[in-house]
Amino acid sequence: MPLNVGVTTIAFAKGEGTLNDFVLVPALDGAPELDAREVTFLADRRAGIGGDGVIRVVPIEHAPEEIRQRAEDARWFMDYRNHDGSIAEMCGNGTRVFARYLVDHGLVDTPEFAIATRAGVKRITPAGDGFATDLGPWRLARPADAAERGMDGVVQVVGAEDPLPALSLDLGNPHTVVALPPGIDLGALDLTHAPHVDPHPEHGTNVEFVRALDPGHISMRVHERGVGETQSCGTGAAAAALATWWWAGQPAGQLDWRVDVPGGTLGVHIAGDRVALSGPAHVIAEGQVTLPG
Amino acid sequence: MPLNVGVTTIAFAKGEGTLNDFVLVPALDGAPELDAREVTFLADRRAGIGGDGVIRVVPIEHAPEEIRQRAEDARWFMDYRNHDGSIAEMCGNGTRVFARYLVDHGLVDTPEFAIATRAGVKRITPAGDGFATDLGPWRLARPADAAERGMDGVVQVVGAEDPLPALSLDLGNPHTVVALPPGIDLGALDLTHAPHVDPHPEHGTNVEFVRALDPGHISMRVHERGVGETQSCGTGAAAAALATWWWAGQPAGQLDWRVDVPGGTLGVHIAGDRVALSGPAHVIAEGQVTLPG
Repeated sequence: MPLNVGVTTIAFAKGEGTLNDFVLVPALDGAPELDAREVTFLADRRAGIGGDGVIRVVPIEHAPEEIRQRAEDARWFMDYRNHDGSIAEMCGNGTRVFARYLVDHGLVDTPEFAIATRAGVKRITPAGDGFATDLGPWRLARPADAAERGMDGVVQVVGAEDPLPALSLDLGNPHTVVALPPGIDLGALDLTHAPHVDPHPEHGTNVEFVRALDPGHISMRVHERGVGETQSCGTGAAAAALATWWWAGQPAGQLDWRVDVPGGTLGVHIAGDRVALSGPAHVIAEGQVTLPG
Repeated sequence: MPLNVGVTTIAFAKGEGTLNDFVLVPALDGAPELDAREVTFLADRRAGIGGDGVIRVVPIEHAPEEIRQRAEDARWFMDYRNHDGSIAEMCGNGTRVFARYLVDHGLVDTPEFAIATRAGVKRITPAGDGFATDLGPWRLARPADAAERGMDGVVQVVGAEDPLPALSLDLGNPHTVVALPPGIDLGALDLTHAPHVDPHPEHGTNVEFVRALDPGHISMRVHERGVGETQSCGTGAAAAALATWWWAGQPAGQLDWRVDVPGGTLGVHIAGDRVALSGPAHVIAEGQVTLPG
């Protein structure tokens, strides 16, 4: 690209996992920093590159002090920002695309490695053509209610007469999972607006609609809090598998789940009070982008 | 980007003009050709790079025979494809982004130059920070009707009681322009669905809704045939200016128009039976992209 005087040009990559897509910005010597305006530009699908989020690839020695202090053996910090420029804790699908970038560029030297995020260290292992990420602990949002009835709330679905029973889980972020009864078509659900959840969660919730297909195999759609319907949500897939497993009586022989999302297929592995997410990850383009002056 | 065996990696650029955005693919020795699947991938905003269209940059000696035969002095062929992979004749905003790529890369050696398109040769001149493109001839779709009443049809607008009078023009593609009366807010128009136009054009039409602001200055929104509402439509901006000029009695002293579209500002110059479009054009990124195997 021709150099223009007074213009900032930086390296970038574009990648996706189950159509959750990201602009990656290598900051191998700590630069560039990106302010909210620059992140918004990079994530803009028309004016910039386009993505659900922007991820700086930062060596741990250039990470903020509070990240370095609890980095354990992680050598890289995943500095994740939302599409709107705000700072986010973590992104399950994003960890795999981040891992793909590190592996493709020879920035890690073992097949299993740790990455530092604002939500703590995440451990990555190879899984098929992609990666698995240990998402950490999960729990029922209201254990006493769920233990009694398997459900702890209801969700009103457009087109259904009665509210549907639902189960809420906490995976660091809040999820409410609804098992669709026969007669309601998953593909025909109207998710234009946020579903009404009762009891109403104070800080909102992601809502997953699940159809059980076979033992250990579900299909789902997700309405993400503050975003709308998306092609994929990593923690949402984990919550959907966990809820279905819970309703099935937590069978010890059914800890691996296949979860079909609109953007592809994810795997969920239940390991006691922890859960891991696996799936594909691609980096499809790399180049130089000129930031607005 | 690390090389992967058996994988095709090609050069690309990303650019936009008034937020009409494009993936450019230099084919300086005639390659790569792109099939519909590859174009669709490149234009995909999540799996690929993302754009309203894909433009191959082709030296005229590598253009198809039917393009070469009527290329006049054009040295470059703009091989434009739609977002869905289909072949398109031309794209007004695309010509400026194509011109920007040629100029930035030193592929033209005069400030004014010609480019070959499937709709014939288009002449480019510098205009402010951007370029002007001679779009060629325009005409009223039904001259006899329009000469009599200034309008030749009606468009039904959601929320308006009565259909609004409209004028249809032919700029190589069909346009129907509606002047909004006071009391209907341009920003509040519901353009979710194609407006109903009477008489109904056999092959559909682009519909422009126009608010006159000052002499020679209008604001508009556009519903593109087969696409929906867009941020900008080059021929639509020209049609909107031409219709407003027609309604004003074709004043000889008012041949230059400023047209505000949602994605920015365009200029329209009326020169007898020809019309030119000017506006900004940016190439913001360049790099390598890996095509799906």
